[in-house]
Amino acid sequence: MRILLVGAGGVGNAIAKIAARRTFFDAMVVSDYDLGRAEAVLAWITDRHGAEVAGRFSAARIDASDADSVAELARASRATHVMNAVEPKFVPSVFAGAQAAGADYLDMAMSLSEPHPDAPHSKAGVKLGDLQFAAAHEWEASGRLALVGMGVEPGLSDVFARYAADHLFDEIDELGTRDGANLVVRDEDGNEIFAPSFSIWTTIEECLNPPVVWEEGRGWFTTEPFSEPEIFDFPAGIGPVECVNVEHEEVLLMPRWLSAKRVTFKYGLGEEFISVLKTLHRLHLDAVAPIRVRSAGGPVEVAPRDVVAAALPDPATIGPRMTGKTCAGLWATGTGKDGARREVYLYHVSDNEETMRDYDSQCVVWQTALNPVIALELLATGVWQGSGVRGPESFDAAPYLELMARAEADGGYGQAWGLEDRTRATAAS
Amino acid sequence: MRILLVGAGGVGNAIAKIAARRTFFDAMVVSDYDLGRAEAVLAWITDRHGAEVAGRFSAARIDASDADSVAELARASRATHVMNAVEPKFVPSVFAGAQAAGADYLDMAMSLSEPHPDAPHSKAGVKLGDLQFAAAHEWEASGRLALVGMGVEPGLSDVFARYAADHLFDEIDELGTRDGANLVVRDEDGNEIFAPSFSIWTTIEECLNPPVVWEEGRGWFTTEPFSEPEIFDFPAGIGPVECVNVEHEEVLLMPRWLSAKRVTFKYGLGEEFISVLKTLHRLHLDAVAPIRVRSAGGPVEVAPRDVVAAALPDPATIGPRMTGKTCAGLWATGTGKDGARREVYLYHVSDNEETMRDYDSQCVVWQTALNPVIALELLATGVWQGSGVRGPESFDAAPYLELMARAEADGGYGQAWGLEDRTRATAAS
Repeated sequence: MRILLVGAGGVGNAIAKIAARRTFFDAMVVSDYDLGRAEAVLAWITDRHGAEVAGRFSAARIDASDADSVAELARASRATHVMNAVEPKFVPSVFAGAQAAGADYLDMAMSLSEPHPDAPHSKAGVKLGDLQFAAAHEWEASGRLALVGMGVEPGLSDVFARYAADHLFDEIDELGTRDGANLVVRDEDGNEIFAPSFSIWTTIEECLNPPVVWEEGRGWFTTEPFSEPEIFDFPAGIGPVECVNVEHEEVLLMPRWLSAKRVTFKYGLGEEFISVLKTLHRLHLDAVAPIRVRSAGGPVEVAPRDVVAAALPDPATIGPRMTGKTCAGLWATGTGKDGARREVYLYHVSDNEETMRDYDSQCVVWQTALNPVIALELLATGVWQGSGVRGPESFDAAPYLELMARAEADGGYGQAWGLEDRTRATAAS
Repeated sequence: MRILLVGAGGVGNAIAKIAARRTFFDAMVVSDYDLGRAEAVLAWITDRHGAEVAGRFSAARIDASDADSVAELARASRATHVMNAVEPKFVPSVFAGAQAAGADYLDMAMSLSEPHPDAPHSKAGVKLGDLQFAAAHEWEASGRLALVGMGVEPGLSDVFARYAADHLFDEIDELGTRDGANLVVRDEDGNEIFAPSFSIWTTIEECLNPPVVWEEGRGWFTTEPFSEPEIFDFPAGIGPVECVNVEHEEVLLMPRWLSAKRVTFKYGLGEEFISVLKTLHRLHLDAVAPIRVRSAGGPVEVAPRDVVAAALPDPATIGPRMTGKTCAGLWATGTGKDGARREVYLYHVSDNEETMRDYDSQCVVWQTALNPVIALELLATGVWQGSGVRGPESFDAAPYLELMARAEADGGYGQAWGLEDRTRATAAS
């Protein structure tokens, strides 16, 4: 397996570092628009693992917005797999570039949605991934695989859903991805600051777009942003967090392969963050269309959302000032294998202290990066096989979760996942 | 009197329109960085009042950031008075330009403050107007007048304070400027939108800077932003509004000429607006130092605060979609002329419906513009005379308030002001 990694930002950086501890691939080209970022990853790997391990890696410049640039570098590096680790707005060009080069493709976020022109808060318009699924027959015909949504959420959440469908339930009422954290970032003086742990650009996109929900018999539909708030109790000491509906890939992926009455995604944004996002929207600062702004050198055109991102700390740099844990998981309800009502939460927790210590990578970014590396390993070893445009839930979840949980000393990733049976708690409440 | 008006934005525009109905001056040059804005004012005056009235007005281009540009145009237009109607950050250059040209000077906001380097929220650093008062002896020596802070607040509020000191109180405990409104702006579909009625740039500056308070024996000191919240009950149907301490010129002006135990300024921002300002601050979007932001044409440098301003509707354009009233006034407490405790609120209300009908100008902007025109008239007629750097409270308030309230048919401005005696209400509570 020869991997072209597109993007050496927070997640791309961590993918390369995690991959450096694995032997399943022959070469990884770490590419970025800013060559310096790609070279910095190689320097870290050399420093931490020595020249021999780093020998499998090389750095290159790429323009992810240009499919030809992606195809060219994929061919030049004889890539068998293109691993997309840039912002979702570049999905079309990286996806097309991989296809043109005849390589397999993986990403962690799917092509962007467009609201329904008449009824944005009730009907789905162009959905997440529609652009990619439209090309499914071409990928199928050429025998190539595009594994889409293969991060932590979407990604691990979808693997959990497949596991629940295969091993825990006879019939599923709801597949609900639930994400929450207790992360705090402080400045030099120890004061809590506002510093989102993930790209604010992407966070605004997912949170302010109309959330999408899937229901049996109704299909996909949308709601107002921040709808159906609920308090979800997260494990590992995180505790209760306010979660709201957010547009997310799981809702578009799971119903294609799994049977459930309802599929949702709720994000534990917390009250403060929701209020910040609402304010940005109210002040038109979430806009991506450039506006005219005065500057010392005369008027310039900038997208307000890019200004918001530039004014905040880079999520990739806040790790050292952050404390806490983040939890990604799937809450499922339905009828268990014994015919009785069942409710479970399958989850994985990432602790910032550990990811900083072992990878110099903050926990949210690291948790996202972990999963595509596991998937690549399952593809390299032939445990996962397939072609077409596919979500993680279209593959067997058991070997994935086994490899993830197995100790590193025994060839696994040493990342435990949890299954919390909430059946009794629900009955009591 | 020949007036050079610097700035044809919202307030400058309204100054010219109000002046068009008065005969006390010989000529007014309306100048702006954007000549089109100056010409638009002239077109309105011609359209509304005919060519003869408009004949006293002319349009010119100016760079308010450049003292030489201001001085040059002041000389070329043989200005006896330079009326500054641009953002307060241009006060130093317009002030210096007027001085260089030997003209008298008026503004509606004073030179900006700088927080104390060590104790920004307890000690005053460079205060509002310090730069201007530092030149007081030069203005005094040349026999020229710089009348600073002569809008509505500061301005009319200071006139009210002088009136209270001369006519209502023997001894004053607190001179408290209190400003509140019930304005609502709606979009085409009738939905309430976020659209501040005054320059967001200036609003952020005054609201996020440490508020300044003056106390007898202690002098000027500062507090945390949004300190000492109180519910103030405004007249004219506006009702109770949450007011907080805000940095404002009155606190710097009144103690120089009037005797009081405490001088404060509280702004009826309301809960939502305070929350928006806090969020902008938390996200560093109030910053005036340029940051690097990506754009289609490559990285550019813009000040986040300029982007916030550019993303919001121009306050000068929201009048047609706005409803409600704004109230500016002075709340004073102390010992009345009869030796008994007294509490009064002196105020002026501006109704958007009226200012739009008569001036195509929204009420907050119009109310600000009204006052420097009255002051110019008192200077032109010799009722007000003086030299040096002076605040409005250094002049006799009685003729000002008389001219303001007198009917237009009788040569006045037809703007009633109110005196609400709150002595009894306080005793009862």
